[in-house]
Amino acid sequence: MQLKAKYIDMESAEYTAVLNREDALEIGVREQDRVRVKHERSSIVAVVQTTVTVVKKGEVGILGRGYADLGPEPDELIEVVATSKPESIEFIKRKMGGKELTTEEIRTIINDIAAHNLSNIELTAYVTSLYMNGMNLRETADLTQAMVETGEIIKFDRSPVFDFHSIGGCPGNKITLIVVPIVAAAGLLIPKTSSRAISSAAGTSDIVEVFTGVDFDANKLRNIAETTGGALAWGGSVNLAPADDLIIRVEYPLGIDPHAQLLASVMSKKKAVGADFLAIDIPVGAGTKVPSMEQAQAYAKDFVDLGERLGMHVECAITYGEQPVGRAIGPALEAREAIRILEGELHPSSVIEKACGMAGMLLEMGGIKRGEAKAREILMSGKALGKFREIVAAQGGSADIKSTDIQIGEYTHDINAKMCGYVNGIKNKELVALARAAGAPRDKGAGILLHKKRGNRVDDGEAVLTIYADSQAKLDQAIELSRKFNPVTIEGMILQKLPYISRTTVIERTFCPAPSAPQGD
Amino acid sequence: MQLKAKYIDMESAEYTAVLNREDALEIGVREQDRVRVKHERSSIVAVVQTTVTVVKKGEVGILGRGYADLGPEPDELIEVVATSKPESIEFIKRKMGGKELTTEEIRTIINDIAAHNLSNIELTAYVTSLYMNGMNLRETADLTQAMVETGEIIKFDRSPVFDFHSIGGCPGNKITLIVVPIVAAAGLLIPKTSSRAISSAAGTSDIVEVFTGVDFDANKLRNIAETTGGALAWGGSVNLAPADDLIIRVEYPLGIDPHAQLLASVMSKKKAVGADFLAIDIPVGAGTKVPSMEQAQAYAKDFVDLGERLGMHVECAITYGEQPVGRAIGPALEAREAIRILEGELHPSSVIEKACGMAGMLLEMGGIKRGEAKAREILMSGKALGKFREIVAAQGGSADIKSTDIQIGEYTHDINAKMCGYVNGIKNKELVALARAAGAPRDKGAGILLHKKRGNRVDDGEAVLTIYADSQAKLDQAIELSRKFNPVTIEGMILQKLPYISRTTVIERTFCPAPSAPQGD
Repeated sequence: MQLKAKYIDMESAEYTAVLNREDALEIGVREQDRVRVKHERSSIVAVVQTTVTVVKKGEVGILGRGYADLGPEPDELIEVVATSKPESIEFIKRKMGGKELTTEEIRTIINDIAAHNLSNIELTAYVTSLYMNGMNLRETADLTQAMVETGEIIKFDRSPVFDFHSIGGCPGNKITLIVVPIVAAAGLLIPKTSSRAISSAAGTSDIVEVFTGVDFDANKLRNIAETTGGALAWGGSVNLAPADDLIIRVEYPLGIDPHAQLLASVMSKKKAVGADFLAIDIPVGAGTKVPSMEQAQAYAKDFVDLGERLGMHVECAITYGEQPVGRAIGPALEAREAIRILEGELHPSSVIEKACGMAGMLLEMGGIKRGEAKAREILMSGKALGKFREIVAAQGGSADIKSTDIQIGEYTHDINAKMCGYVNGIKNKELVALARAAGAPRDKGAGILLHKKRGNRVDDGEAVLTIYADSQAKLDQAIELSRKFNPVTIEGMILQKLPYISRTTVIERTFCPAPSAPQGD
Repeated sequence: MQLKAKYIDMESAEYTAVLNREDALEIGVREQDRVRVKHERSSIVAVVQTTVTVVKKGEVGILGRGYADLGPEPDELIEVVATSKPESIEFIKRKMGGKELTTEEIRTIINDIAAHNLSNIELTAYVTSLYMNGMNLRETADLTQAMVETGEIIKFDRSPVFDFHSIGGCPGNKITLIVVPIVAAAGLLIPKTSSRAISSAAGTSDIVEVFTGVDFDANKLRNIAETTGGALAWGGSVNLAPADDLIIRVEYPLGIDPHAQLLASVMSKKKAVGADFLAIDIPVGAGTKVPSMEQAQAYAKDFVDLGERLGMHVECAITYGEQPVGRAIGPALEAREAIRILEGELHPSSVIEKACGMAGMLLEMGGIKRGEAKAREILMSGKALGKFREIVAAQGGSADIKSTDIQIGEYTHDINAKMCGYVNGIKNKELVALARAAGAPRDKGAGILLHKKRGNRVDDGEAVLTIYADSQAKLDQAIELSRKFNPVTIEGMILQKLPYISRTTVIERTFCPAPSAPQGD
């Protein structure tokens, strides 16, 4: 049926077509059924919603991105026909039934996801079946490969390609801003793409965006990396393995992240840039994504094995994640802390140690001996700062970026200790909630600065942290929230620091950087 | 935040609030997050969609039913606040993890579903987890009870209450129109509610609606049943166990019907009308919902056991379902066939046998000896017709309804045999697809009339079926479809009828009516 195209400015995770009830009847579809909408040579498959008044008989409303992807003029006649359910649904049901999926079945599912052919309902069934029944390594490798093939694949002018990833879950983890310049300054190619925050206070891209551009297509990313040896780009704009973003949209409200999907999500983005050597940071501990050492080791083993299947050499570091890395949480605060370290500041030491440990792993994979010492040398010599400024400039920022250029939130509030003693607990999730209440990651200046960390002595009335916000209203929100829970606990009874038992362990086939200091920074 | 209410005339399975992007930011929510929308004493929880133009800053759009349920005046100021995820999500994740749910957890999930607190994504995770991990009998009983409690509960002025249910899957199953009047004419109370077609060509309510009203609230249903002893109402309007309809909305696109949910769906509606005795028809065979005898027996056992836990005496009949019951498929055609039998017509015998078999089960549960013979006597004496007319009149139809009053589709097309031989296959799903292509169940006159059934002799060129439609366009659609597949297969090689091996078996604790004739009617 030919219908007049109407743009409806609303977003939904699935492509959605709004039909007048009479036309829907005529076409023979009802809510949640599918129509194919064709315009010139492009076409989309959309889930049907029906209406009596939003669009008139003879019109079809297309929501948000679907309209843009299809590209008709307003009121242009476009063809709308009923279409059958995608084949993927049968394969998803096979996974629901506990079956192993073939390469071809997995590819079909991922292609349908990337083409927006699955509704939220079907996508959720996929994610839930994966969460419940899992995938073996062969399936996971096929999943990764299928995700790679739905997006851009970048070939650089030289090899090998190095890459770095942190699976996240530990706030304040701004080390990418230091790792990438060190590795690039050592002459290795590291075209790093990062994500934005989903549930954290700042993703690496949110931090980098404070002082330079992050939004590049594949060509521009290649150009930046080939020129400078590094990059600090946002993965979303490069269109690497785009099915992943659609899958995350249904994982997020359920708060689930199926093991196989997490593995494929990380590895597909690395495979798409042709990474040969990859270092992965797995923060472990209460309040992170990976609470126990056993789980961390299982992830590490799977990353390494999956890498082997994909022709990628992977090493993992299981790192201490029970308190933030460094002292700053939130885009601008983290940017400032990282740049200060590049400028030669020796504090917070946990950031320096973790960054040099991870960079050192990559240098050793690249054949450079005593990697961590070499990384530290590159950092201390100012070469990392030079490389950082080169990358910032290539991405459109200032070529002489300084930590003092970074604007942090002007509305601040101190949270003071109500007793004296030693800090014995810092709760990651509560700190993130505070930082988000203060406006992070959208308000770049918002966040938290910790003055005290685990094992630090604190006096009654002394500030343990400061909340930063870009507006009084948001600051008030965060203060309000801080009354509900206490992200920093002080135990006055303990008069001595407890002996530290390391949770950072070297595991088989993985390399471990120097453990982050458990006390203070 | 106070926002002006705007009605958006679109339906979505979940309550949906459309916020201007700026307001969403202010409230601190993003797509797929939830807001509570309050108006006077009522409030709803809605899933957020964001927009730049559909609603302006300061406005909130509420979709379809959500607006009606909330009831504000246009532009009235209503309160919109961010709200946390419902507790149910944790319980759904427990079921995803293979755990047994407590009574309280199940009640919380069902309450959240009934209150529209779960999004499509969360509802799908629930249905998928149930499909994959199942529920034990205790959980299923709790699920049933929770579903009962979210809706109307009807108490009649006398007891016991009898009820009847067919789990469906076999086309042409119009026997409810005969069973109910027989049972009511025998002096038993049978306040039957039925459903409309979801994927079939005609639900019982679609058939009854051809000649009388079906749309009653709980009070009116009680009134009809107490006056006449019977009812042929649409369950949807009575608001029995309403969570079920919301669950079906996500089951339908996935084509799944989790065992525990199917059991609870049937039993909750019976429990809600206080049924003491229940007969269940389980059609079995290729092309039905229950392909194998083993599955049918498993269902029968679970229905009986579940009934025991709910204080209901249940008997099941496993019936032959590999070809339609009788010859008519589609609302008006089925109505006419059923009324003709009530008027004394002795054909098709499969309809009479099945109806009297099922009615007989109920009579025996009510203490009437030789139930099936008694049912047949009530039918043949015209008492069933008299009771039927009473019920029709009580529901707003004509008190002297006749089969000749029923209008069937005026556009018809015969499908003729291309060879002579015996009919050896009638495909249920293809027949339903044909009837639906012809317009059923929406077009009341549309459907199929079979002239030949399994084992019948057919000559070359003889009509095997006639398609009926209410419009030439729909008729053409059905004819077009009939070219793609042949719902009736003829095997010329067989010169003798094959010996019949009964697929209808009496199973433990269940009663089986006379088997439907496998050949002809």
